[in-house]
Amino acid sequence: MFYRKIINDPVYGFITIDDPLVYKIISHPYYQRLRRIHQMAMAQLVYPGAVHTRLHHSLGAYHLMCNAINELKNKGFPITDAEEQGARIAILLHDIGHGPYSHALEHSLVPQLSHEEISLMMMKKMNEELGGQLQMAIDIFTDVYPKKFLHQLVSGQLDVDRMDYLTRDSFFSGVNEGVIGYDRIIKMLTIHNGELMIEEKGIYSIEKFLVSRRLMYWQVYHHKTVLCSEKMLINIIERARQVKAQSLSETLNKFLHGSFKPDEFDEFISAFCNLDDYDILGAIKHWSAHPDAVLSILCKGIINRHLLKVKYFSRQIPEGLLLRIRNEAAAKLNIPFEETNSLVFSGEIENRTYNTTDEHIYILFKDGSVKDISKVDNALINQTLFGTVKKFYLCFPEIDN
Amino acid sequence: MFYRKIINDPVYGFITIDDPLVYKIISHPYYQRLRRIHQMAMAQLVYPGAVHTRLHHSLGAYHLMCNAINELKNKGFPITDAEEQGARIAILLHDIGHGPYSHALEHSLVPQLSHEEISLMMMKKMNEELGGQLQMAIDIFTDVYPKKFLHQLVSGQLDVDRMDYLTRDSFFSGVNEGVIGYDRIIKMLTIHNGELMIEEKGIYSIEKFLVSRRLMYWQVYHHKTVLCSEKMLINIIERARQVKAQSLSETLNKFLHGSFKPDEFDEFISAFCNLDDYDILGAIKHWSAHPDAVLSILCKGIINRHLLKVKYFSRQIPEGLLLRIRNEAAAKLNIPFEETNSLVFSGEIENRTYNTTDEHIYILFKDGSVKDISKVDNALINQTLFGTVKKFYLCFPEIDN
Amino acid sequence: MFYRKIINDPVYGFITIDDPLVYKIISHPYYQRLRRIHQMAMAQLVYPGAVHTRLHHSLGAYHLMCNAINELKNKGFPITDAEEQGARIAILLHDIGHGPYSHALEHSLVPQLSHEEISLMMMKKMNEELGGQLQMAIDIFTDVYPKKFLHQLVSGQLDVDRMDYLTRDSFFSGVNEGVIGYDRIIKMLTIHNGELMIEEKGIYSIEKFLVSRRLMYWQVYHHKTVLCSEKMLINIIERARQVKAQSLSETLNKFLHGSFKPDEFDEFISAFCNLDDYDILGAIKHWSAHPDAVLSILCKGIINRHLLKVKYFSRQIPEGLLLRIRNEAAAKLNIPFEETNSLVFSGEIENRTYNTTDEHIYILFKDGSVKDISKVDNALINQTLFGTVKKFYLCFPEIDN
Amino acid sequence: MFYRKIINDPVYGFITIDDPLVYKIISHPYYQRLRRIHQMAMAQLVYPGAVHTRLHHSLGAYHLMCNAINELKNKGFPITDAEEQGARIAILLHDIGHGPYSHALEHSLVPQLSHEEISLMMMKKMNEELGGQLQMAIDIFTDVYPKKFLHQLVSGQLDVDRMDYLTRDSFFSGVNEGVIGYDRIIKMLTIHNGELMIEEKGIYSIEKFLVSRRLMYWQVYHHKTVLCSEKMLINIIERARQVKAQSLSETLNKFLHGSFKPDEFDEFISAFCNLDDYDILGAIKHWSAHPDAVLSILCKGIINRHLLKVKYFSRQIPEGLLLRIRNEAAAKLNIPFEETNSLVFSGEIENRTYNTTDEHIYILFKDGSVKDISKVDNALINQTLFGTVKKFYLCFPEIDN
Repeated sequence: MFYRKIINDPVYGFITIDDPLVYKIISHPYYQRLRRIHQMAMAQLVYPGAVHTRLHHSLGAYHLMCNAINELKNKGFPITDAEEQGARIAILLHDIGHGPYSHALEHSLVPQLSHEEISLMMMKKMNEELGGQLQMAIDIFTDVYPKKFLHQLVSGQLDVDRMDYLTRDSFFSGVNEGVIGYDRIIKMLTIHNGELMIEEKGIYSIEKFLVSRRLMYWQVYHHKTVLCSEKMLINIIERARQVKAQSLSETLNKFLHGSFKPDEFDEFISAFCNLDDYDILGAIKHWSAHPDAVLSILCKGIINRHLLKVKYFSRQIPEGLLLRIRNEAAAKLNIPFEETNSLVFSGEIENRTYNTTDEHIYILFKDGSVKDISKVDNALINQTLFGTVKKFYLCFPEIDN
Repeated sequence: MFYRKIINDPVYGFITIDDPLVYKIISHPYYQRLRRIHQMAMAQLVYPGAVHTRLHHSLGAYHLMCNAINELKNKGFPITDAEEQGARIAILLHDIGHGPYSHALEHSLVPQLSHEEISLMMMKKMNEELGGQLQMAIDIFTDVYPKKFLHQLVSGQLDVDRMDYLTRDSFFSGVNEGVIGYDRIIKMLTIHNGELMIEEKGIYSIEKFLVSRRLMYWQVYHHKTVLCSEKMLINIIERARQVKAQSLSETLNKFLHGSFKPDEFDEFISAFCNLDDYDILGAIKHWSAHPDAVLSILCKGIINRHLLKVKYFSRQIPEGLLLRIRNEAAAKLNIPFEETNSLVFSGEIENRTYNTTDEHIYILFKDGSVKDISKVDNALINQTLFGTVKKFYLCFPEIDN
Repeated sequence: MFYRKIINDPVYGFITIDDPLVYKIISHPYYQRLRRIHQMAMAQLVYPGAVHTRLHHSLGAYHLMCNAINELKNKGFPITDAEEQGARIAILLHDIGHGPYSHALEHSLVPQLSHEEISLMMMKKMNEELGGQLQMAIDIFTDVYPKKFLHQLVSGQLDVDRMDYLTRDSFFSGVNEGVIGYDRIIKMLTIHNGELMIEEKGIYSIEKFLVSRRLMYWQVYHHKTVLCSEKMLINIIERARQVKAQSLSETLNKFLHGSFKPDEFDEFISAFCNLDDYDILGAIKHWSAHPDAVLSILCKGIINRHLLKVKYFSRQIPEGLLLRIRNEAAAKLNIPFEETNSLVFSGEIENRTYNTTDEHIYILFKDGSVKDISKVDNALINQTLFGTVKKFYLCFPEIDN
Repeated sequence: MFYRKIINDPVYGFITIDDPLVYKIISHPYYQRLRRIHQMAMAQLVYPGAVHTRLHHSLGAYHLMCNAINELKNKGFPITDAEEQGARIAILLHDIGHGPYSHALEHSLVPQLSHEEISLMMMKKMNEELGGQLQMAIDIFTDVYPKKFLHQLVSGQLDVDRMDYLTRDSFFSGVNEGVIGYDRIIKMLTIHNGELMIEEKGIYSIEKFLVSRRLMYWQVYHHKTVLCSEKMLINIIERARQVKAQSLSETLNKFLHGSFKPDEFDEFISAFCNLDDYDILGAIKHWSAHPDAVLSILCKGIINRHLLKVKYFSRQIPEGLLLRIRNEAAAKLNIPFEETNSLVFSGEIENRTYNTTDEHIYILFKDGSVKDISKVDNALINQTLFGTVKKFYLCFPEIDN
């Protein structure tokens, strides 16, 4: 017999699991693996509280999905039990395909696949095991299910994924300025022409939501020290490949130095599901004593939080500056010039507060008219915010003379 | 012997009073009167938690002033004990001149004086009683003291008054989207050329602060029901004057139907300090049974929260519409057409997110350069937000047929 | 057509009103009157944030009732829609009969009736107006409805009234040590033999609840300054009667100096519903200038927060001490000795952490056995806490020589 | 030049580091290692938010120490700058000697040394490196410094260690009933005869603190699932030793299968500082595929959160029951009976709410008298709570037939 499970959550109080299928999914090793993947990768080096996991985020997004669906049903929009279960499971599993250190290493360890593609592969695998019970969830996740708003709740400008990660990341990092009114936004959700929209009264909450997101990006996710340590992580993987450094984990070595054949689908999934932050950090600890100077400098840097210096520029970093610093580093650290590119490097990051090209936030007015949030009277979110904001970074070792 | 006083505050935890002079001021009847003036006037008719008082807000602003000064001193900016005491007292007393229902009735009861002018009159009076001990506070309040940043902490774009009222009003109303990062803003304060500025790292916090303010204005302070009930309050005072309605309070009657001669300064102050929300609400209860239909309709409306209907328009309300509704109201309520203007009325309200004409928020960059917040790269606060946002309202009685 | 109403509450986030009958009750002048009655009487003189109203508390208790019933229904206990509505309305109206300053003046203004009795009178009156729609609520309120647990949710050791007032009072006063785990307690509620009980896992939450209550009583409700100011309030009413002081409110004068005949039920209710904190405080302001020295001292004391001194003793205060202080006060204040009993007085207060004589908190164990919370293994709540804790207070004017 | 560092903390807002020596200590690899040690070991398997680290707890305790010392100085107790720095550093380093999974494996990995002893060894080592600058901290930590209250702030019934871990653990686990009034307790601290005491007004806060601790012990730290998983962890280490299982980490192997000679102090410290949760979890992942059935069952159990079943009993578990279950497990899992003791086992845990034998919480009354908290009038903490509460647990594999 199944009893309801109640999970304490510092963010929402209690998360209730009242569906045996959901409970079965949560108990699955694939899902439990998310306990070993940090939600915010290296952000904890700046925000020591930001050590929460992908598992926690998924549970939180699941909780908000329950609330959102409940709210929409109360407003009279028809949603069947099967659809409700499908949407709940889709969000529960939306991040199941994240690998170690999530976004930070997303294109390093498995260059050819995005985490969404892997999520889908894993969902299909679980669906087989569970006799097809996840089909609705998969249809919603892949946006082939006719009721489009269900997919939009999972992935879209107003999805519960964003609502949870902004809320949870600001909670655990202690950046309480990132707080959004998730409960109010959920109360303002509505459906019009099959699409998710916001009631007129919710305009200011949405503005606040977009501004909080902007703040979280620049103050937390793209904090220069966070960015620098995540770039170091990427360089470690790259350098380990170059010098053929072996980690202690056979699984990780396969991803570093081997490859999977197209027909080794099961082997790939099985190996991938065996991989988490612990393999990477274990390797980094191990390589701290690696004979390759560059690799060991980077690894010790992460372990002892002795990071590279980093600066932001508003313009492209001149090639000459980069060369000069690389020369200094080569001399100072006694490594060949060509190897300094793992320790002295530049690049650009960008973020958009609101992007009208791919997706919209629609406001439904009392008179039945619909407007994009950027087109309402006196909009805060306007032309200026559409453009991509770019910053240029330069990372380099501290060189004391 | 003086013992430190600790006051529990749900917003900041504890407020500490460690200065006998400050304690003496708090104990003064002028200050205690602020217990009987609601910080948010009629907002409680929409937000039932918003019943906090001017006294509480003043104490909170005092607390933030202590923190701000402490932070600036820790950064090495010289501030003497006398200046610190002056700034603390100036903020403690900055609202002492608010009358019943604060802003809502500010220009109704004492048309010729702003609350700041009355604050100054009362500060001067207290200064006499206290043998000149408030002189520094008065100099800071009136911006004649040379260290300009002290005045800016009391009154300016970044003053602790705003920081407290946004924080406190969002806390008590439960509109937690209005929350600002007051503690982070205070940590980012700096002084440059004698003026209060914000360190570069604080840009996003300031953007958030301005957006929160915008949200609080439109969602709370100018919430249509709040606006309507505060206009009803004004109309009650006006109508009471027209029909010479007597309240039960002699003091209030003097403000309603009498006047003070220019040389009756002491009488004015003494009468004013005897006036608070209780006189007004007492009068409204009394006038609920007044023979004048208009007055009694308005008064019963406030007491029983049976308010006028209100609608917002983005354009001026056509005179014709107004006339039509006034005619309907006259017929329905059986009152002469000319008296309906207290029950059917329109007007406009406005708010600016950031106003560059009168004051600036300056960002001090690491390289020593200074920019207005609206001029930094990728500014959220830009041209669009400078303009005044206007809305037009129409209030009228519910007329069921 | 009825739309759901959403009310912002700083304590619970949002309170939802989704029943037109409930909305009608909230809109009734009887209910709106609760806006003008402070939940915590004079506690705001010590805790400036504690200015919330009876209306807010009732709404909060209503919200918890909705949650509690929902939880019990989810656990499979049958509760009909009519019962649910009845329980919700019963808690909404449980405090409707509170007069000005609630408990503080409960036995002063209407000596012969408790607030529960008046609540019932008013509920009956409203029931008539509403064509009998409140009958179920009245049956639950008066404990004649067969499903006993419904009454216990309204009034009992585990009722939502207590859960809300402890939560709300600690929230607004800023005494966050009074916080209880109301959401966890509600999740632990169960029904056994028709009675409300707590699941085994909830024992520690209940212990914490009782200890928080104990703390709130001694630290807040019976804080010596709060107690003293509430005794002053009582003495003001008493003294006003003795010296036949007229207030400005005719209604209040009726309660002070007149009386209602047994058959004047409607007149009594109508007058009572016209009475609130504003009448009392208005009178106190008025009497601050009353020729009777004792009355004016007490009234000015409240208005200017210039309170009597108060001390707690663990033993009865010796008559001799009292006499000596009364003599000193008489001399110092120049009033006859016999009149000093309003300014120098003693008494006792008591509180019990857990009282087994009248009611029990039962724990339902997994094996089906039931134990009183004080009888479980290693109980925190034991013999020592059954006895009544008494303290003796002495209030007297500050006499500086 | 040293700039103040500000660290975001979701619990306290901001933690300020304003001392270059403190910053140097925080930057030391010994201290950074604490990032990789979970504060609450396996509690995250029940409370998914409880993933915070020892580093975060140490920083939090440091913050409270700053506040406590500041409060005591404001009350006029003389504390020199050197003493203040010493106390701050002592608390910062008090947990530096914790090994992987802190308390859970404290006596498994290094059986002969407590974490306090290792902390002291590491502090001495750092003191050498830092030219003796930690001597005062060491003297306070080892309680040889004459001002006894400084040590009591680091380690005692009222130390900031407890205040932080109760606050932080309840925050991250979401068990908000464990919340204590740390800020109020700190405000109530005083010194009498050189010892740390609590002012009379703080009695209820201390009661609340002890009851919260009791709740946290039974509801969180000794939650049966948490206990079970931590016992599994111990059994994994033990079993790994028995079957000589090699982990991938050379350092860990040394602790598992080797030993340090008495004169290998530096080698021991250096190896110990290389060890953290990542080595243990890495080993557990590796051993999930170990040929030894017992070891692999335990390891897979932890990785996939497929834990042993656990039950609490109030009495010693009968030997016969244990034997019967071991026999069943042997048959079912096809392992020899004698090896089942890692999978079927019992034991006892205990906790005391207040222990008068080793240490006291003293209340200083206004009249100068001192009483133990358990001896004050109407004490909540009394005889019943002195005794040790024991519970007996039984863990065993789920055997579905």
